[in-house]
Amino acid sequence: MQVAVIGGTRGLGNWIANFLKNKGCQVTITGRNTLLGEAIATKMGVYYTSSNTQAASSAQVVIVAVPIEFTPQTIKEVAPYLQEGALLVDVTSVKELPAQIMQETVPAGVEVLPTHPMFGPRIRSLEGQVIVLTPQNRGNWYPRVVEFLKSEQARILETTPEFHDRMMSIVQGLTHFAYIAIASTIEKMEVDIKESRKFSSPVYSLMLDMIARIVAQNPYLYYSIQTQNRYIPEVHETFLETFTHLKSMIDEENQEGFVKAMSSAAKHLDDLEAALGRSDKAISALNAEVTHLKESMGQEVGLRHMYSQKIHIGILEELNPDFVRLKEKNKITRLKLSNVEVLSAEEIRQWKIDNIPLKTFDVSVTFPENSKPDLIAQNIEKIEGVVQAKVIDVYQGQQIPEGWISITLTYQVVDSGLRTEVESILTTFGGKIR
Amino acid sequence: MQVAVIGGTRGLGNWIANFLKNKGCQVTITGRNTLLGEAIATKMGVYYTSSNTQAASSAQVVIVAVPIEFTPQTIKEVAPYLQEGALLVDVTSVKELPAQIMQETVPAGVEVLPTHPMFGPRIRSLEGQVIVLTPQNRGNWYPRVVEFLKSEQARILETTPEFHDRMMSIVQGLTHFAYIAIASTIEKMEVDIKESRKFSSPVYSLMLDMIARIVAQNPYLYYSIQTQNRYIPEVHETFLETFTHLKSMIDEENQEGFVKAMSSAAKHLDDLEAALGRSDKAISALNAEVTHLKESMGQEVGLRHMYSQKIHIGILEELNPDFVRLKEKNKITRLKLSNVEVLSAEEIRQWKIDNIPLKTFDVSVTFPENSKPDLIAQNIEKIEGVVQAKVIDVYQGQQIPEGWISITLTYQVVDSGLRTEVESILTTFGGKIR
Repeated sequence: MQVAVIGGTRGLGNWIANFLKNKGCQVTITGRNTLLGEAIATKMGVYYTSSNTQAASSAQVVIVAVPIEFTPQTIKEVAPYLQEGALLVDVTSVKELPAQIMQETVPAGVEVLPTHPMFGPRIRSLEGQVIVLTPQNRGNWYPRVVEFLKSEQARILETTPEFHDRMMSIVQGLTHFAYIAIASTIEKMEVDIKESRKFSSPVYSLMLDMIARIVAQNPYLYYSIQTQNRYIPEVHETFLETFTHLKSMIDEENQEGFVKAMSSAAKHLDDLEAALGRSDKAISALNAEVTHLKESMGQEVGLRHMYSQKIHIGILEELNPDFVRLKEKNKITRLKLSNVEVLSAEEIRQWKIDNIPLKTFDVSVTFPENSKPDLIAQNIEKIEGVVQAKVIDVYQGQQIPEGWISITLTYQVVDSGLRTEVESILTTFGGKIR
Repeated sequence: MQVAVIGGTRGLGNWIANFLKNKGCQVTITGRNTLLGEAIATKMGVYYTSSNTQAASSAQVVIVAVPIEFTPQTIKEVAPYLQEGALLVDVTSVKELPAQIMQETVPAGVEVLPTHPMFGPRIRSLEGQVIVLTPQNRGNWYPRVVEFLKSEQARILETTPEFHDRMMSIVQGLTHFAYIAIASTIEKMEVDIKESRKFSSPVYSLMLDMIARIVAQNPYLYYSIQTQNRYIPEVHETFLETFTHLKSMIDEENQEGFVKAMSSAAKHLDDLEAALGRSDKAISALNAEVTHLKESMGQEVGLRHMYSQKIHIGILEELNPDFVRLKEKNKITRLKLSNVEVLSAEEIRQWKIDNIPLKTFDVSVTFPENSKPDLIAQNIEKIEGVVQAKVIDVYQGQQIPEGWISITLTYQVVDSGLRTEVESILTTFGGKIR
């Protein structure tokens, strides 16, 4: 299948191009910078052209993945060139306007599917990711797209562009925008945020982290979303009125009014108990990690860097609210606490098996003849750090006393020190090492 | 030591009274409802009087723990009655006004310690809890209070009432108040919150949970905090201006201005990378739990109810976004997913050891005489579900062949089925059960 990704050299468009190429599609990407585009395409093993219309005219599926503000004009540019039977998709965070323009500009016989993938280019697979589809003229393509996304275990949400944009006006127009205003107010008030974190619970700290998370996003993208969603101005107005009204009740010492408004808002939110439970869990997960590390001072711990996925295993030498210091084999590693996840004992064991060169040992041992060689090997294999143990010989006869058998085992361990442990178990039960 | 807790019949005051009583203080509580007060005091094993002044005049430490709006008048009522050398403490969420009134109304020779315990009456100990102290006339009491709180492993933050109230005007006047306004706007816009959760990432869901968490608090307390902190009106004003300004940049399509404001706010927040890391972790902890449960369908899982701390162990029969259904021994239990934490394998094992009646078995087994009875017992003890194993007899002689010894072990298991496993290990290594 031939796919054109308009704006496929960067960001989500690039992610989509790469993903479809790996699924066996023949992919063409476009982008304004020819030199860069060609270099990226070569590296990815896809085609490149600087001409959007050329890419669009020769593909069965055309995906417009340019920044929101360029989306309307890009759709108008490429839509007339689509072949009959082709599919036109956009992947912007606003759906009403692109859906309308696509519908108005495609030739007859072209299917239109305005789409909002609810994820960024950092994900590794579609598993569990939400994709909103707002089909316009459902044809042969729609069931195929749904089936494909389902086979990739994405979660599909089908709705209208209008409903999508209304919901997004709350998610992004209300909560995200209010968060940006909170952060900007903190800046204006010249508050020392680090200092303010000391003055409250982990709840407040997590609140600040969530605010920081939103404010750290691409401001151009946020600007575009706020300006392109036509339901947002009303949401902003309503928020301003509501805030002003709540504030006036405080200023006028209208206790009854404030209490009524706050209780009523609480009632309207869905299941408060569940919200408390989930946020308690999120907070306790952060605390549990620190508690575990505190108890592991001077002992071996395993940490996974959240972004590079690199694993560090070593002795925990120092722990403060920001950093951990680990003594790894030949070096000291200092890691930011907020960037690492603590590994479980099982994860550490598995990592060692996968990453440390295994040592192989053989041992011959005599046991009473009623002993069970294969089960002995199985028991040895249960020792932590022993990766494999098997019987390579069972011998009875010369040099072996009457009523005894000689069993030869071969086993692999992650650390040669484990040899003592294996042999100790064998002799514990009366085995005699030859 | 004699302590009076003014308003000690309910809420945080009651928690403090109980806590100090358990630490060996002689505690008197007061409260307006005599019948109720007497009943509560009797149950707690403390004294009760309906007279605040009487309680205050006969105690060495007087703690005012009435709602914020009654705090000024209550301080004025009791302060003149304090004995020379006594300590007067308040525990409200605003510090400037109570500090000033206490200082103005106590007789000479009385020490004043305005305090803000940053926790509610649901906690079980002071360990790790933040307590803000804003000492006024530091005397003999101050170091004693600090030492006591430190011995309870509380985290002490010493500052001035002014600085405390300024910080709280951000924590509660800005973030909490904006959250209430967001929730109230959602109500006004008549948005279906459950529906809106589908339209975004786990990030948005956690944001909503944090908002719900704040809005679910006691609205009377929130009203009082907002009205009693004199720095809050300015914060509200600044927020309104900031929001209006950001909104106007959207309305006027001033991209440059918006991008500049958002980037600058982001820069002012502390370490964004750490905030991303921590919030990623909080979110992934919530996801990891669901993933683990999904993989455990039809298998044994352990769940701890977050509030009752009750443990449920059973076969996982059903899992949906809201509920889990467990088949426990003789019944089916349905639990709200948001209210339970998943236990680790180690926690399940420990629970079984602590809660399931143990079964004791003895076994006599012959082994070659070079075997090591105590180490055999130690190895048996390592089997999962075996709680204890020890050697009670080692015998050599009549009925035992030359070169062999008879070892008698006694061991306790959580399930009688483990008897087979223990005996199988003994015979694996050539032991003969007698």
